[in-house]
Amino acid sequence: MCQPVRVSAESTDRPVCVLGLGLIGGSLLRAAVAAGRTAWGYNRSAIAADEAVADGFDAGTDLVAALERARREDAVVVVAVPEPALDPVLEQVARCAPGCVLTDVVSVKGAVLDAVRRHGLAARFVGGHPMAGTAQSGWSAGDGDLFRGAVWVVAAEDDTAPEAWTRVARLALDCGSVVVPAGAAEHDQAVARISHLPHLLAEALAVTAASGGDLALALAAGSYRDGSRVAGTAPGLVRAMCEANAQALTVALDEALALLTDARRALATSGSTEALVEAGYRARRRHDDLDRWDITDIEIGAPGWAEALRDAGRRGGALRAL
Amino acid sequence: MCQPVRVSAESTDRPVCVLGLGLIGGSLLRAAVAAGRTAWGYNRSAIAADEAVADGFDAGTDLVAALERARREDAVVVVAVPEPALDPVLEQVARCAPGCVLTDVVSVKGAVLDAVRRHGLAARFVGGHPMAGTAQSGWSAGDGDLFRGAVWVVAAEDDTAPEAWTRVARLALDCGSVVVPAGAAEHDQAVARISHLPHLLAEALAVTAASGGDLALALAAGSYRDGSRVAGTAPGLVRAMCEANAQALTVALDEALALLTDARRALATSGSTEALVEAGYRARRRHDDLDRWDITDIEIGAPGWAEALRDAGRRGGALRAL
Repeated sequence: MCQPVRVSAESTDRPVCVLGLGLIGGSLLRAAVAAGRTAWGYNRSAIAADEAVADGFDAGTDLVAALERARREDAVVVVAVPEPALDPVLEQVARCAPGCVLTDVVSVKGAVLDAVRRHGLAARFVGGHPMAGTAQSGWSAGDGDLFRGAVWVVAAEDDTAPEAWTRVARLALDCGSVVVPAGAAEHDQAVARISHLPHLLAEALAVTAASGGDLALALAAGSYRDGSRVAGTAPGLVRAMCEANAQALTVALDEALALLTDARRALATSGSTEALVEAGYRARRRHDDLDRWDITDIEIGAPGWAEALRDAGRRGGALRAL
Repeated sequence: MCQPVRVSAESTDRPVCVLGLGLIGGSLLRAAVAAGRTAWGYNRSAIAADEAVADGFDAGTDLVAALERARREDAVVVVAVPEPALDPVLEQVARCAPGCVLTDVVSVKGAVLDAVRRHGLAARFVGGHPMAGTAQSGWSAGDGDLFRGAVWVVAAEDDTAPEAWTRVARLALDCGSVVVPAGAAEHDQAVARISHLPHLLAEALAVTAASGGDLALALAAGSYRDGSRVAGTAPGLVRAMCEANAQALTVALDEALALLTDARRALATSGSTEALVEAGYRARRRHDDLDRWDITDIEIGAPGWAEALRDAGRRGGALRAL
């Protein structure tokens, strides 16, 4: 397991079995086929499966058949079902294809890793999270180019199998993404700050603006529209990701609350917003100026490779090739 | 003063004197000329004035000459200087052109109204606020189409002169905007919610995200980018508008803090974000579904006209014509 892996196109260019054909899974099936992979999909409801077949893809509603084929062809299995469906799907994976490399595309990695461990699938599992999406959902909203130029987190834990990591990273690269390595816990802490917190701030802005009545809403322009945009996301999706990451989100929310409470005090006492406004400007500039450097010198499977990858990710590194 | 005004193109199609040729003033000079008005501009620094002349506009650096011409030609005088320059400019207006209709384009209306009263100019003053802008500034960033389709608040106080109100509203309509009537105080309360609060939330998001280090910034995608976009605005501009509206902003900020504090408590105790997420979704939908209806039945100058306009504005009404 800990032998260095020599990566070649042949060794990793394996079939892909996509479980769940919604926006992300459906886009992934398209992208994998476009990259020249053999790929097939499963969806619980026949609607998406039929749409996929009508669009020329190999798809069906028989989970056992999809997984038995994955075992026969040594496919990478991608779990792309909504969070509530995770457990029954993992149960079938453990029964039909326990030896396959397994990944997922769910936005909170700690909860998925726990579920995978419960089902005894950790040895071949590598968590994944493509940072891409739209407000739409379903097979028809999918797009084979959805992941092009996006960041795809591929989780590297100390017990991750190097060959499995390489296969999952190769799939993300084949879909046109850059790979950022991270541990599940630090991924969840990061997305609490840059994805789940902005959702809660957007909700609070939307409510406070509407409390100003139709006059306030009629005057709302760019800063309101951008600041509250994601409050238009379906509440179920927002709740699912925020609540699955409650612990890390609480930490991020507390930091934002402290900043805003300090600003409120300064505004009321000295009439100044200097501290928050100057810090916010510097922070946003730091994002805009971020240099995403290429990770090129880490041999996957060499001693300490996972920690080396995580460390590079923490310092803003990304893989564009293997 | 309280006689109903019969509005005709002839009676209102007056010259325009624009004081300050930055983004808003420069765009206004272009838009007024494009609408067929005689218009000229003043700017303290010669750079913008020279650029305007080079672009074929009538502009200079002599404030007294611009204002004496305004008095001779009975022009509408538009104050478009940065807030710190307000007092010296109003002093010259009071000296050279006290009888001209006077308006402004500053984003906080209460503070400007106070300054105008201090200079004894309230009788001919009508506050204005075009809800348009870009991240750029200066003459060269201006655009004669900047106000097209935008909302332009034209303040209606109980002591506003009907003829002056009509002239300022006509100018806003000539620039392609729709006119939303409001009192200065309720305008400031509204913009605290939809413009100044989103700036502070964006700053807090930017700082909290950056505290997650380069990994968090590398993963930042749409919800971070939109939510923190206005944190990239020059700090001086953000501070000027937030601090000039400190009282109303404190109220809005307290409401947002209460929502986020409640959400934090619910997340930590029950793991749920339902209350905030559902309320935010409904509020954003209310904005998206807002029906901006046309105000057509109010005669400017008839008894109670200003209150009738403000009431219509509160209920989402706007003027598209006079």
